[in-house]
Amino acid sequence: MKVLVINCGSSSLKYQLIDMEGERVLCKGLCERIGIEGSKITHKANGGEWEQEVPFPTHTEAFMKVVEMMTSGEGAVVKDKSEISAIGHRVVQGAEFFTKSEIVTDAIIDKIEEIAPLAPVHNMAHVQGLRSAKAVFGEKVPNVVVFDTTFHQTMPKKAYMYGVPYEMYEKYSIRRYGAHGTSHRYVSMAAAQYLNDSDLKMVTCHLGNGSSISAVNAGKCVDTSMGLTPLAGVLMGTRCGDIDPSVVTYMEQKLGFHGQEMADYLNKKSGLLGISGVSSDMRDVTSAADAGNERAKLATEMLAYQIKKYVGSYAAAMGGLDCLVFTGGIGENDNRVRASVCENMGFLGISVDPAKNQQRTSDILDISGKGSRVKVLVVCTNEELMIARDTKALVEARR
Amino acid sequence: MKVLVINCGSSSLKYQLIDMEGERVLCKGLCERIGIEGSKITHKANGGEWEQEVPFPTHTEAFMKVVEMMTSGEGAVVKDKSEISAIGHRVVQGAEFFTKSEIVTDAIIDKIEEIAPLAPVHNMAHVQGLRSAKAVFGEKVPNVVVFDTTFHQTMPKKAYMYGVPYEMYEKYSIRRYGAHGTSHRYVSMAAAQYLNDSDLKMVTCHLGNGSSISAVNAGKCVDTSMGLTPLAGVLMGTRCGDIDPSVVTYMEQKLGFHGQEMADYLNKKSGLLGISGVSSDMRDVTSAADAGNERAKLATEMLAYQIKKYVGSYAAAMGGLDCLVFTGGIGENDNRVRASVCENMGFLGISVDPAKNQQRTSDILDISGKGSRVKVLVVCTNEELMIARDTKALVEARR
Repeated sequence: MKVLVINCGSSSLKYQLIDMEGERVLCKGLCERIGIEGSKITHKANGGEWEQEVPFPTHTEAFMKVVEMMTSGEGAVVKDKSEISAIGHRVVQGAEFFTKSEIVTDAIIDKIEEIAPLAPVHNMAHVQGLRSAKAVFGEKVPNVVVFDTTFHQTMPKKAYMYGVPYEMYEKYSIRRYGAHGTSHRYVSMAAAQYLNDSDLKMVTCHLGNGSSISAVNAGKCVDTSMGLTPLAGVLMGTRCGDIDPSVVTYMEQKLGFHGQEMADYLNKKSGLLGISGVSSDMRDVTSAADAGNERAKLATEMLAYQIKKYVGSYAAAMGGLDCLVFTGGIGENDNRVRASVCENMGFLGISVDPAKNQQRTSDILDISGKGSRVKVLVVCTNEELMIARDTKALVEARR
Repeated sequence: MKVLVINCGSSSLKYQLIDMEGERVLCKGLCERIGIEGSKITHKANGGEWEQEVPFPTHTEAFMKVVEMMTSGEGAVVKDKSEISAIGHRVVQGAEFFTKSEIVTDAIIDKIEEIAPLAPVHNMAHVQGLRSAKAVFGEKVPNVVVFDTTFHQTMPKKAYMYGVPYEMYEKYSIRRYGAHGTSHRYVSMAAAQYLNDSDLKMVTCHLGNGSSISAVNAGKCVDTSMGLTPLAGVLMGTRCGDIDPSVVTYMEQKLGFHGQEMADYLNKKSGLLGISGVSSDMRDVTSAADAGNERAKLATEMLAYQIKKYVGSYAAAMGGLDCLVFTGGIGENDNRVRASVCENMGFLGISVDPAKNQQRTSDILDISGKGSRVKVLVVCTNEELMIARDTKALVEARR
């Protein structure tokens, strides 16, 4: 079975075609600037890469071009689009309505649209993507939606409720939803499989441009650091993470911002960028810190310290810790962040082998120190594969 | 030496006269509705209590009445105000300028006024109190200021900085200051003395109508849950505690609130009250929960869970934990909250003896379970005594 995995943004369409026999990626690519002048596609397949400027007035034209690239020319990987058995779509927000991945029906598309106020830009883009996919591939090819939030739907109420008046939850669905759920699910499953134990207390740290940390007990998420939106938790590329809520209202009064303007400031000007003044990219920030930039050094220290506190807090939430997982761009590649997080954590049974921590992996790496009671793993995440697996399982179950 | 301890609010004046020989409270009382119609004083001394309606146009008249009550009639405890050697004032916000208690000079009053934007209502009331005290007691009686924030000034920068643009710190002094510092200092010192060990990793939980949690390593605060203001941290009587900062901007857009209006909503309508819908008082909430009120039950669960997570996170911040202290109205009296926080925390070496946890204390109680590696203590806080001690020490050192 060949599954096309789709991630639609408001002006972009990322895709991967995965052959589920051997879980092999046949091709992948990106359509950019959809609905904007200068739109283009980048397609990678058969060891080559092609870039073409093509007008994409809507996601539908982008889908048509993706089909063309996959079926013709040097980048072709299938003879005809009929070889594609199913399409799996990433959806950012499933609210409380969706607790697992689903085969798409018109009612489901309507529901994704209905809950869009909780993630307006993302969910509306996904709806567009779903409608375009149906238009281009026809009604016979099943579409599956895989939500970033469903993995976190097992959180207990004491973990997902905020201390604001209860009617905010009833009227406006304000609560913790979390994000990166597909990644947390993938790496926690991979770690459990690697350790051959499904009953583990695990903290999974997805650290990248956006970062989130989850407490996963026996495969079920019990808490996560992102909240109503992906702004909460640890310091991120341009997002502030957890702050005293008074900081928001105080800055509003000082800066004369409010509502969306303030949200933009916290989402786009803050985090590593706002602290360091250098960059939102951890690699740049680390280089600047090494060159003696004090604010860059502070940013790296804040990040490691905040992650460390989440690890301790989630160990307390679960009553212990068996396994600590690092993933995402920073988690997989930045051994210094990993070392800082694990430093002086012997009281929890965490130790890291400095030599192993220097190694790289494209799969799973055990960096635990000798005698570390807690297994410390680097697991390369693969959200696309997780989406493809869900898609395959649902489509096969329906048959 | 007799020290008068003063806590001025914008329309109130709390006082205690402490004889430092034996650290005995001679009298205490409260002036209410200063500057408002219907102002009155309540004075307790010599086993009696007196209430009088007296016009208090300003704090000065209130001070004059306090002197009258202390020196004449049945509630008298000194012959003349000249027996009062010094006055210790509580000050909420000392910003980065004050790192310890200080003997008051005109320059210090000016500075407290200058940093008032960080705590407008409180600091301006303290300034009024200081000026009134000088007017009533004269220049010869030394005044000392004891700040809620100075104990937290030892936090490292990685703990007190927020992930918002760095210029917010430079321009507007936006950072974590913490609060309840005098209480955290008092109970951490008392616990260290009780355990006869000054090199302990300690988490102190001040739980009351306002709650804050501190990490105290070898007597020095390294992190605390309150932030720029006392809104952050765990769920409180009417304050929301930590929430995704997006919740603020999202609610602003839904409710049409901004700035101060939103701050009031988060400070006065949220917390235990907002979740339970019953009361801001933990005793009422617990009763309602026992009677089957689901939202009240949720509020109690959220509070215990959030405290538990802070304990874990601060253990991680310090690289271990030796002692856990409960104090404040809830911390000293609510054994169920203590039990919930400590439940399933064996991995940290915490256990509680259920029978000891039922006991009450007016001083210090060790409720640790048999073999608990971490000492779990209930310590009755005494901020007034801490202020009096600082006052005495500074005045004596000056001689």
